[in-house]
Amino acid sequence: MAEHTGPGQVRPSRRALLARIGAVAGGAAMYQVMSALGVAAESAYASPIKLEGDPRGATVVILGAGLAGMVAAMELRKAGYRVQVLEYSDRPGGRCWSLRGGDRYTELGGETQTVSFDQDLYFNPGPWRIPYNHHAVLDYCKRLGVALEPFVQVNYNTLLHGRNAFGGRPQRYREINADYQGGIAELLAKATRQGKLDEMVSGQDQEILLESLRAWGALNADMTYAKSLLTSDRRGFARDPGGGLAARPVPSEPVALKDVLSSRLWSFLVAGSLYEFQTTMFQPVGGMDMIAKAMAREVDGLIRYNAKVTAIRQDDRGVMVTVQDAQRGDAPQEQVRADWCVCTIPLSVLSQIEMNVGGPMAAAIAAVPYAASAKVGLQFKRRFWEQDEHIYGGISYTDLPIRMISYPSASYGAAGKGVLLGAYTFGPYAYEFTALPAAERVRRAVEWGATLHPQYRDEFDGGVSVGWHRVPGALGCNGMWTDAKRAEHYDNLCALDGRIVLAGEHASYIPAWQEGTILSSLNAISRLHHRVVTA
Amino acid sequence: MAEHTGPGQVRPSRRALLARIGAVAGGAAMYQVMSALGVAAESAYASPIKLEGDPRGATVVILGAGLAGMVAAMELRKAGYRVQVLEYSDRPGGRCWSLRGGDRYTELGGETQTVSFDQDLYFNPGPWRIPYNHHAVLDYCKRLGVALEPFVQVNYNTLLHGRNAFGGRPQRYREINADYQGGIAELLAKATRQGKLDEMVSGQDQEILLESLRAWGALNADMTYAKSLLTSDRRGFARDPGGGLAARPVPSEPVALKDVLSSRLWSFLVAGSLYEFQTTMFQPVGGMDMIAKAMAREVDGLIRYNAKVTAIRQDDRGVMVTVQDAQRGDAPQEQVRADWCVCTIPLSVLSQIEMNVGGPMAAAIAAVPYAASAKVGLQFKRRFWEQDEHIYGGISYTDLPIRMISYPSASYGAAGKGVLLGAYTFGPYAYEFTALPAAERVRRAVEWGATLHPQYRDEFDGGVSVGWHRVPGALGCNGMWTDAKRAEHYDNLCALDGRIVLAGEHASYIPAWQEGTILSSLNAISRLHHRVVTA
Repeated sequence: MAEHTGPGQVRPSRRALLARIGAVAGGAAMYQVMSALGVAAESAYASPIKLEGDPRGATVVILGAGLAGMVAAMELRKAGYRVQVLEYSDRPGGRCWSLRGGDRYTELGGETQTVSFDQDLYFNPGPWRIPYNHHAVLDYCKRLGVALEPFVQVNYNTLLHGRNAFGGRPQRYREINADYQGGIAELLAKATRQGKLDEMVSGQDQEILLESLRAWGALNADMTYAKSLLTSDRRGFARDPGGGLAARPVPSEPVALKDVLSSRLWSFLVAGSLYEFQTTMFQPVGGMDMIAKAMAREVDGLIRYNAKVTAIRQDDRGVMVTVQDAQRGDAPQEQVRADWCVCTIPLSVLSQIEMNVGGPMAAAIAAVPYAASAKVGLQFKRRFWEQDEHIYGGISYTDLPIRMISYPSASYGAAGKGVLLGAYTFGPYAYEFTALPAAERVRRAVEWGATLHPQYRDEFDGGVSVGWHRVPGALGCNGMWTDAKRAEHYDNLCALDGRIVLAGEHASYIPAWQEGTILSSLNAISRLHHRVVTA
Repeated sequence: MAEHTGPGQVRPSRRALLARIGAVAGGAAMYQVMSALGVAAESAYASPIKLEGDPRGATVVILGAGLAGMVAAMELRKAGYRVQVLEYSDRPGGRCWSLRGGDRYTELGGETQTVSFDQDLYFNPGPWRIPYNHHAVLDYCKRLGVALEPFVQVNYNTLLHGRNAFGGRPQRYREINADYQGGIAELLAKATRQGKLDEMVSGQDQEILLESLRAWGALNADMTYAKSLLTSDRRGFARDPGGGLAARPVPSEPVALKDVLSSRLWSFLVAGSLYEFQTTMFQPVGGMDMIAKAMAREVDGLIRYNAKVTAIRQDDRGVMVTVQDAQRGDAPQEQVRADWCVCTIPLSVLSQIEMNVGGPMAAAIAAVPYAASAKVGLQFKRRFWEQDEHIYGGISYTDLPIRMISYPSASYGAAGKGVLLGAYTFGPYAYEFTALPAAERVRRAVEWGATLHPQYRDEFDGGVSVGWHRVPGALGCNGMWTDAKRAEHYDNLCALDGRIVLAGEHASYIPAWQEGTILSSLNAISRLHHRVVTA
């Protein structure tokens, strides 16, 4: 954000603040806010790509069958290219991935987890929600028939928890939200009425300001935020209204602003107003990998799985990719040739593969570290969060290392077991967490989560964990740009280098999101195609 | 709220404010806020009712097969009573009602509308959403197998429109929300830093306050809310970030606080923080009347439809209800006898029926006027709000008489036609609107709605309108209590009068909501049952 904020900005304080926002919105968002150039937003996608002109039988080898690779394969084939896709793993989708009962997952280091969830219950280790402004993802879902349902990001009845806040007792989102809003509205109203804003706000505007604060902050006629049915209609009641006799509601006692402030739970109120977390959000019905599966159906037969790329060489006639069976270390090396190459391999992996690109692209590939992140999916014998606590979807936040608990945005009210997201760590702790054995990660997620939900102890019924730095083929969550790195390397990373072009979330301004992945791919193949048809 | 606010409260200003809130939340909410005793909130329902003790074959006649009547029928039969239900109309559910393609509806005055919607498209003239804190409704849905899906109340991408705001150009919710929050955060931060809050807030709290305002309001390092990627990450971008080259986002220009204030669009920001409109809200999959239909299946055979009650007489041995076929004015009168009577007929109708209850209940029945409200459902040839404007569910607000446009919270991204709520008027205008011919109401809704969505003109494909004062058997939207009327009449309305007890939303502290209806019914039958088994 060098061009948008002055040099005088107070970095440490800013960092601290952003770390709090990160705690709300997830690792990706934290990075995005920290690196202002990476602030993610509404997609630049308007309509399906049109690649006009005849590629005259040109061949393309696409490296990686994640969303970037599969989008490239779909669209280039449609434009007349002969396409093949080489995928390191044994499934399509890359980080667009869901784990279901019976699935096995082997991480770097060799530990294998077998998922014990019930049928139809799943957990998304990677992307798990789709903003309304991610038009490309939504359009591909529509074109490919992927059914969507709302993902509940903000739920006023979820819990906000701080180890040092309110003696460690979780509060409800609605309580902290109402009391913070009411508290600052009252303060600003008082200052206004005492004439302290006279230099900043005209008299007429002051009147409207006061009126707005009263409505917005639930202030009483004397402009205070006080115990009343009015404020309880925001924060909740001590006794709820009912029907018939003895049904009269009893108001609850607000928390004083100074206690809300010192609790720091206000930091969790931001998420829902960030562009990528605003309503209406979506998730595919049945798991995020429904997108990957739908794309894989489209490019059926084009993908070669278990194909480990060990070298990428280009010359003025074409590209030669060396591959080996990923399941057998002693497998022979093979050569795959094509006229062009779209490489979607994460930079964390690509930086370890021999490739003869120019200095600028090589430097860019080497420059971008990958963010750490880990998730834990937990199954419980019953959906106690709904049955006991009336929490339907949404996210509870905590300053414990699990950071959040996200309740399923589907099958509301269902009997039987349920799976929730029991931890989504990022930042420094994610490295420590990822280093633990899988069972220990799950054990800690259960222990910490029980602080918010004591039912964890009786109802826990198995879990699975994914630390992204140990996911083969990914080796990290997402490319972690900084302003300085963007300025120096981003364009070099994206530019066509001879016959090779890179794509993926790392080659976008929407890092860690599927939208960035798809837009990066569309932009890359547009430029590649232009080169081909104008050559 | 007489006991919660002082006598010094400024009524006119308060009214004006609340009228604005009403414009946001709907007629019911307006009334609820205006009548503080009626402030609606989390339900007092904990678990299914248990009616213990043997009624020894006692008979009950229940008047009305809305939710109150059907809940009473289900639970009393389960408890051992012999039950019959008399219903004026030819369907169960009362105000819990959905109109679908092919349905015919004849209102008071004789005008009949035939609904021209496509199959599977519907419109709820009455209740249309279920708060997470309406536990009784949710529990009955669960017990009866009524599938629920999220109802999107707040959508950051919907429109806010004022005839005199921004030259009549609709703004996005996210823009007004971000700019209002940012504007007041900046003001309060400035006042704090200038020492103007020193008497109100301690030095340490001031530091945390500033930190919170910066995060919450998206303030820059110098504590201003200014054009930047940071603020665009709340309000939206001038050019969205993309992938690959030329993908850099461009920030948008915030609206100055004084312009937000004078636009009065801030008044539309309140809805989502009110207890009954907070996430997570629900709707039954396929229409609100799925609840009515599920209950009707439970009490199959107990309901006599087209039964118009003309008199209710009780003596010390029982209750005698005079009924007549509602379809034939010349039909003979019949007598239905029972030991007890649960009467759920709306007071608007009941006040016109001869009934020998005591003076206090009679006075209560006569005391409560009914709120006016009208809705219009509009079908369009395509879901242009999604396709053109990326609005998925949620509500756009306007100060035009239609008050709001609510987009369907289902079938996101579907091809084909769509039905939205094109008007939800209440207050004085609802009387005028209800007085118009149905086609004229629809025509006006289309004309006004086109101000927000010009696509209306080309895409309109038929509509239906319901003005509640013209709905036979209801004659209004809901009982309209005031504080004074509550104090004088509410307990008299609810108390068992001889062998008769009343139930319905009008006999609750959650007026106009199905939760009030059900809780009222459960409370009434509990007291009736207690009388029976202890007699």
